[in-house]
Amino acid sequence: MSGIKVSGEKRLVLVSGRAHPELAEDIARELGSELVPTDTRTFANGEIYARFDESVRGCDAFVIQSHSSPINEWLMEQLIMVDALKRASAKRITVVAPSYPYSRQDKKGRGREPISARLVADLFKAAGADRIMSVDLHAAQIQGFFDGPVDHLFAMPVLLDHFKKKLDPETLTVVSPDMGRVRVADMWSDKLGAPLAIIHKRRDPMVANQVSVHEIVGDVSGRVCLLVDDMIDTGRTIVKAAEALKKNGALGVVVACTHAIFSDPASEILQSDFIDEVVVTDTLPLPEHKRWDRLTVLSIAPLIARAIREVFEDGSVTSLFDGAA
Amino acid sequence: MSGIKVSGEKRLVLVSGRAHPELAEDIARELGSELVPTDTRTFANGEIYARFDESVRGCDAFVIQSHSSPINEWLMEQLIMVDALKRASAKRITVVAPSYPYSRQDKKGRGREPISARLVADLFKAAGADRIMSVDLHAAQIQGFFDGPVDHLFAMPVLLDHFKKKLDPETLTVVSPDMGRVRVADMWSDKLGAPLAIIHKRRDPMVANQVSVHEIVGDVSGRVCLLVDDMIDTGRTIVKAAEALKKNGALGVVVACTHAIFSDPASEILQSDFIDEVVVTDTLPLPEHKRWDRLTVLSIAPLIARAIREVFEDGSVTSLFDGAA
Amino acid sequence: MSGIKVSGEKRLVLVSGRAHPELAEDIARELGSELVPTDTRTFANGEIYARFDESVRGCDAFVIQSHSSPINEWLMEQLIMVDALKRASAKRITVVAPSYPYSRQDKKGRGREPISARLVADLFKAAGADRIMSVDLHAAQIQGFFDGPVDHLFAMPVLLDHFKKKLDPETLTVVSPDMGRVRVADMWSDKLGAPLAIIHKRRDPMVANQVSVHEIVGDVSGRVCLLVDDMIDTGRTIVKAAEALKKNGALGVVVACTHAIFSDPASEILQSDFIDEVVVTDTLPLPEHKRWDRLTVLSIAPLIARAIREVFEDGSVTSLFDGAA
Amino acid sequence: MSGIKVSGEKRLVLVSGRAHPELAEDIARELGSELVPTDTRTFANGEIYARFDESVRGCDAFVIQSHSSPINEWLMEQLIMVDALKRASAKRITVVAPSYPYSRQDKKGRGREPISARLVADLFKAAGADRIMSVDLHAAQIQGFFDGPVDHLFAMPVLLDHFKKKLDPETLTVVSPDMGRVRVADMWSDKLGAPLAIIHKRRDPMVANQVSVHEIVGDVSGRVCLLVDDMIDTGRTIVKAAEALKKNGALGVVVACTHAIFSDPASEILQSDFIDEVVVTDTLPLPEHKRWDRLTVLSIAPLIARAIREVFEDGSVTSLFDGAA
Amino acid sequence: MSGIKVSGEKRLVLVSGRAHPELAEDIARELGSELVPTDTRTFANGEIYARFDESVRGCDAFVIQSHSSPINEWLMEQLIMVDALKRASAKRITVVAPSYPYSRQDKKGRGREPISARLVADLFKAAGADRIMSVDLHAAQIQGFFDGPVDHLFAMPVLLDHFKKKLDPETLTVVSPDMGRVRVADMWSDKLGAPLAIIHKRRDPMVANQVSVHEIVGDVSGRVCLLVDDMIDTGRTIVKAAEALKKNGALGVVVACTHAIFSDPASEILQSDFIDEVVVTDTLPLPEHKRWDRLTVLSIAPLIARAIREVFEDGSVTSLFDGAA
Amino acid sequence: MSGIKVSGEKRLVLVSGRAHPELAEDIARELGSELVPTDTRTFANGEIYARFDESVRGCDAFVIQSHSSPINEWLMEQLIMVDALKRASAKRITVVAPSYPYSRQDKKGRGREPISARLVADLFKAAGADRIMSVDLHAAQIQGFFDGPVDHLFAMPVLLDHFKKKLDPETLTVVSPDMGRVRVADMWSDKLGAPLAIIHKRRDPMVANQVSVHEIVGDVSGRVCLLVDDMIDTGRTIVKAAEALKKNGALGVVVACTHAIFSDPASEILQSDFIDEVVVTDTLPLPEHKRWDRLTVLSIAPLIARAIREVFEDGSVTSLFDGAA
Repeated sequence: MSGIKVSGEKRLVLVSGRAHPELAEDIARELGSELVPTDTRTFANGEIYARFDESVRGCDAFVIQSHSSPINEWLMEQLIMVDALKRASAKRITVVAPSYPYSRQDKKGRGREPISARLVADLFKAAGADRIMSVDLHAAQIQGFFDGPVDHLFAMPVLLDHFKKKLDPETLTVVSPDMGRVRVADMWSDKLGAPLAIIHKRRDPMVANQVSVHEIVGDVSGRVCLLVDDMIDTGRTIVKAAEALKKNGALGVVVACTHAIFSDPASEILQSDFIDEVVVTDTLPLPEHKRWDRLTVLSIAPLIARAIREVFEDGSVTSLFDGAA
Repeated sequence: MSGIKVSGEKRLVLVSGRAHPELAEDIARELGSELVPTDTRTFANGEIYARFDESVRGCDAFVIQSHSSPINEWLMEQLIMVDALKRASAKRITVVAPSYPYSRQDKKGRGREPISARLVADLFKAAGADRIMSVDLHAAQIQGFFDGPVDHLFAMPVLLDHFKKKLDPETLTVVSPDMGRVRVADMWSDKLGAPLAIIHKRRDPMVANQVSVHEIVGDVSGRVCLLVDDMIDTGRTIVKAAEALKKNGALGVVVACTHAIFSDPASEILQSDFIDEVVVTDTLPLPEHKRWDRLTVLSIAPLIARAIREVFEDGSVTSLFDGAA
Repeated sequence: MSGIKVSGEKRLVLVSGRAHPELAEDIARELGSELVPTDTRTFANGEIYARFDESVRGCDAFVIQSHSSPINEWLMEQLIMVDALKRASAKRITVVAPSYPYSRQDKKGRGREPISARLVADLFKAAGADRIMSVDLHAAQIQGFFDGPVDHLFAMPVLLDHFKKKLDPETLTVVSPDMGRVRVADMWSDKLGAPLAIIHKRRDPMVANQVSVHEIVGDVSGRVCLLVDDMIDTGRTIVKAAEALKKNGALGVVVACTHAIFSDPASEILQSDFIDEVVVTDTLPLPEHKRWDRLTVLSIAPLIARAIREVFEDGSVTSLFDGAA
Repeated sequence: MSGIKVSGEKRLVLVSGRAHPELAEDIARELGSELVPTDTRTFANGEIYARFDESVRGCDAFVIQSHSSPINEWLMEQLIMVDALKRASAKRITVVAPSYPYSRQDKKGRGREPISARLVADLFKAAGADRIMSVDLHAAQIQGFFDGPVDHLFAMPVLLDHFKKKLDPETLTVVSPDMGRVRVADMWSDKLGAPLAIIHKRRDPMVANQVSVHEIVGDVSGRVCLLVDDMIDTGRTIVKAAEALKKNGALGVVVACTHAIFSDPASEILQSDFIDEVVVTDTLPLPEHKRWDRLTVLSIAPLIARAIREVFEDGSVTSLFDGAA
Repeated sequence: MSGIKVSGEKRLVLVSGRAHPELAEDIARELGSELVPTDTRTFANGEIYARFDESVRGCDAFVIQSHSSPINEWLMEQLIMVDALKRASAKRITVVAPSYPYSRQDKKGRGREPISARLVADLFKAAGADRIMSVDLHAAQIQGFFDGPVDHLFAMPVLLDHFKKKLDPETLTVVSPDMGRVRVADMWSDKLGAPLAIIHKRRDPMVANQVSVHEIVGDVSGRVCLLVDDMIDTGRTIVKAAEALKKNGALGVVVACTHAIFSDPASEILQSDFIDEVVVTDTLPLPEHKRWDRLTVLSIAPLIARAIREVFEDGSVTSLFDGAA
Repeated sequence: MSGIKVSGEKRLVLVSGRAHPELAEDIARELGSELVPTDTRTFANGEIYARFDESVRGCDAFVIQSHSSPINEWLMEQLIMVDALKRASAKRITVVAPSYPYSRQDKKGRGREPISARLVADLFKAAGADRIMSVDLHAAQIQGFFDGPVDHLFAMPVLLDHFKKKLDPETLTVVSPDMGRVRVADMWSDKLGAPLAIIHKRRDPMVANQVSVHEIVGDVSGRVCLLVDDMIDTGRTIVKAAEALKKNGALGVVVACTHAIFSDPASEILQSDFIDEVVVTDTLPLPEHKRWDRLTVLSIAPLIARAIREVFEDGSVTSLFDGAA
């Protein structure tokens, strides 16, 4: 038969945007690899440019970008990088978005609203992404927004590991800071074998981040309360929740959260006396001036690195975490 | 300029599958119109055939189908009708699915699961649907599964209207039968000005419909409890919840629910003494033998008819319900 | 150059729906492999669920399902399995539909009809199928309904093999039971070196399966007649044809057919004295109570297994059958 | 409410390629309209250019082109015109292809063949066509190749009208020139109440247009034979069929056919003494030198014009012909 | 026939992002209409939210946004608005981008670069845009990046009108500031009947906006030079060009340009003595502190308003400008 | 784990249309391979047929076709071959179009024109092409017309190599024959270290290929002029340019051009005394009667072969030319 035959080979490459290079480097290090040297720049008029310094033909490419503020810049940079990979003949392109952008706009709360979380999935698709990998989606349904595989990783084991050494289930109560997060708290309560309490508050849909704490459902007096949430933005919800817990007799309040958005004034108000410790992961960059002594930042890189390896090697490694299909 | 000009005109047509013809006729009657006579048949080998008996060229077509059991038959029948409309040059095709099929499989709970609710949206799209209209989606995020407009209607005003005449807010408590439905109960508690209670139960992901009631969070003793849910399938969750409420001192238990799936043995066990009244809508067909004296079935047709008219007339009628964009 | 390199490897996996597990197992056995253990269930309300028990990442997956009655259930089950494979990162998904569903609705016979055979191809595509494999399509043009490769296998060699040992070309006449099947009979007549006759009947497009036999074109008196067709549904056409042949002096009537749909009352009336033997393949499941002593069921598994191997190995095996591209 | 409102209006425009301007003009005349003046040219290197001389914004445009030789030129010209209409904001674009190009390559007869009839449908779609209108498709399944409405018109009423005045059903036999056309002949035999005969020939798949006549099935001696086919290409099949008929005692042979492709040497050999009359339509252009005295060319323009009007006016005119959905 | 008929009506709506509200208001005023009141906000974490305060169902919507710095914010805002319009059932959505974003990244200058101008077209499409309207695209080929109609407007008549009153063709020379803009200068020279000169410079592809002026091709001594360009970014190219012209004996230097990007230090260095006047349009917002006495800003709103009206009314207004299809 | 594993292998195959078989064979020879034997034919009515004589399953296929006159025939043949490859399960399909068809219709010069170069990209995509490879696109923006990787090769190194041996930079001037080609000439002037001149002419958009030479910008007296262009069609522009150069004192005129379209009367008038030598590549076939003694035809096959190898081997060969990503 005519033609030329060679034996197949696969090559994994990691590229990173400029939002959170430390995380990308940590992931590369975990994998025993390096990031592809990339020229990314912002021109005077605000346009972003990206070019890879070495061939990515036929590669299994992972484009790592955190979606911190300025979130639209970093989203656009990632889209541009995906476009460049597609046009440079990458074989498969996985968008790694540890903290999925616009995840809270996942439905039309009222008429004539966008569903921006679906739009983001469509933009990734339009640019050329084949797959998405993310950690702790705000709603698990976002998996269904993308027309292709989504690897949904869970940070709970990472956070749990930290707490298991420190907290005594006997005196612990897991607390959901709001009605919408009850399911997450429920899972924690299961894993830790600790009872559950809920803070009944309402978020005004018309005014961003404004919260009014109502009441505590469940028993917190004399307990160490573990407030769990997927993300902390301005921190107001959490601080008010902690205040309510302490005022209702909680012995201590510790906070566990995956995505530390920490929009102002989060890092200031979270240092409140009502909160004894805050534990987050580094899915988002957290500059020094937004850190303080009672804040612990756990590395998410090992989890993502393991998932990337599993994806690249087509499941030859036994799955070490639930939720990654 | 060359060419032929005529003034434009729009024509609304309603077609219906065979799952729930009464509902389709009610909707047509509300609109002062009739259903397009349609030849729908199932051949000996199980294949479905559909053909419209009058022209649908250039029409604004609404394909009404309820997704009761056998759900896959009715889904396929609706897809075939959409295909026939597309090929017969209908201008715009709106799928009316009062009870969205596969809405509970809206995410991957574990690896290697389908996201069937997204698949259904894709199948509608592939067949030729331009829009979807549905009532009380199990998760509002399902709106984002379809690449186009979704009119998400709420049955709450219909149900609320029934209860407002009958229940006294002073003695009423709204109860969520499980953690996942807390947000719906929260809305009811707001509208009725009544306190909230939650039943903490767990649904085993490996065994369908199996439920284990845990505990009641909130105060129900001496109260009339209104259990609210979007759908009742086998009824086991609701009956166990009602039993727990009565055993904890509830004076009465009434149940409000939009989608009366009533898989066996629902209609039998819901007649339990623990439940004083069940109120549902007719988004799904409910044969006589599945009805009993303490069951009230409210008509959803006026709501859907109003929404169809609004869609057809491009919003010239003031929106009478929230959530329909 | 940066990145990680590993040598490529391909993995074939077979998954099966619940319509005809024996066929899937036979195919797996022919290939020296096993089916992926899969959890497929139907919930109380009729919704279907499927989940694979082991990783299918990066696999070349073949989803085997027969489309017997209830045909819409099995079609939907297959679509759900394809969706699950797509979201679980299967590399390539081939739908194996030995008997293509809705193949008779392959055109608009009249205005406002669907083209359900095209719709089915679009549904497979929407769910995520890359390729389709089928046996003896009712019309070869159905290959063109799918936007991708279609492996169209022919059962004739399997059937022919059976007859070559038993029938004498000298006394044999190949008979087409109707005008639409003339081409198939023509091929058989070629291969067997036997003359051709045609039964001129008409199928009423308005009434399913109703047939009116007309006349026999060609010579059948004193001959053994081999009636050939791609599918037998209710069996009425074939029985009437056999009756006409016998009444016109045929010495014997044997029937060869690929797809044994056998909707009632097929298995009963085919035991008619006018028919001496019926030979079919097992593209569709045939329960014991639908079998009788003069029915021979040939295994289609070796043909499909050979085709799957050829597809998986990219044609390194010389093509053993025509028509599979 | 803000915004500007005007009452709607629809404008039909007809544009034509250069293959068969007479037909397009006839259609325009039937509709009481004119063709949009268009600048179509072929540059020195063979590239085609097209530009409309007046606005087509918001129009319901019909692009008329016959696909005679050089068929690829005319196909490309039509694609370019569709592209220009799309970019000029035409509202809806209908491709009018009276004789669908590549209709005979509608399946893979052998492995590694194209399905060019599907490819053509995809090219029309890619260029921007919303609908297709055609006459007497070689296989009705081609309707299913296009993802949208296909108006499939039948020339039989036009041809029948001609013959009804001239032929006596008492002495008439309808003859199919080959196995593949039996269904068409069957319809004619029905309509005319005349018996049927078939010529059993075989077309060598490896050698284009080469035919070997076999035998006549049915009675033709002393009869006037009406040979019916959808298209005549080189004419060899028809001439050999006519010869066989006359040699078997036919009193006369007349030929009816929709698409007069008349590739050389058709117009020469069809003047054979074996053929008394040939009747065709003008779906394809037929220059004077390819016409002779015993050839009758019927105008297809009234049929197409009526269909265009029906499509434009959304079925407000009662359907006057079958098959146009 | 069944169904409900009403006469058609079209409604034009204008919505605007926050980049350049003055321009959108000017356009609305020119059209005698108003902008749809819209709630657009940026949350603490940088995510953008948009919601229309009145129904847009069935509307012909124009989404006006200028793409000034921060360009990615405004692009994302426009995409979100398009998504919201799509989901709110707007009938047709036209993106009005007076200054097309990323227009300079319209090709791969080197390997592994993105083609961001195409990416932007794909993002608009993915969000739901049906059409694009823009002024003076950097390369006319960008029209071909969008799969649909693009209205490409020319600002030259607006600018020309200003200069015709002020400049004497006898002493005027049109100058292209670089090789890539020669075609634009050529058109101006034609329209003004003035000779042409070119400045031969090179833009280093590796360093943004860095320019090295070479030489002047053509005669400028004793002439008034009109430097024409489609956009001025940092202004360095233009200032160096002006300096070279003056040093080569130019009597005066005036600059005409459509898009005043004016990234720093443009507004400072353009006040150079080498430049006598700068004339731009307001396709981009230009705050007071970036304006000076010898800068003239012409309104682009009348041109865009006229084009929108033409699009909305389907060409019933005679085209007043070239290039808008 | 279940399933069958084999190690991966890649196979490159080359197929060729009938436009320029010599080039395809040269490319195959350079690669040390052979073309896949293919049966390509044109039927009597002008329809084209193609079938590959050996399996192409799973192959990395390159479809080589030159787009000379009759350009639409060759384009359609290539589309049909791509369709056949897709349906025969080729893994990846690269269209090799050394001279991209319709590249000059890359924008709407006036309203209601097509953008045929984009249409061609869409047609390739619709047929099933994954990638495009081309040499010296008329506008680099055409890369952005295709939704996938485009390998844009440059012939300059091939041509340059020829001239470097023959021309003395000291006496050489690079000349652009028109404003639109200035950028190409600029690159040559850079590479050769020779000054630049431009011929200011205008091409009438209404009349194909008609040119009116204006004036020479830059110094050519006493110089050897190297006229560079991407394509020569009828040759009139080049001959008039050469005449102007000689009349303005040029010592010699040599012409370098990639695509030798040579529509009549090119090969006749290019033999003008004003031109001393013409050097082209063989991206297009050039029959003997269109060649003359002062014409040099350089082989483009090594360049294309090198690019194909690089694409097939995923960049393991260091890139030897710029512009191929």
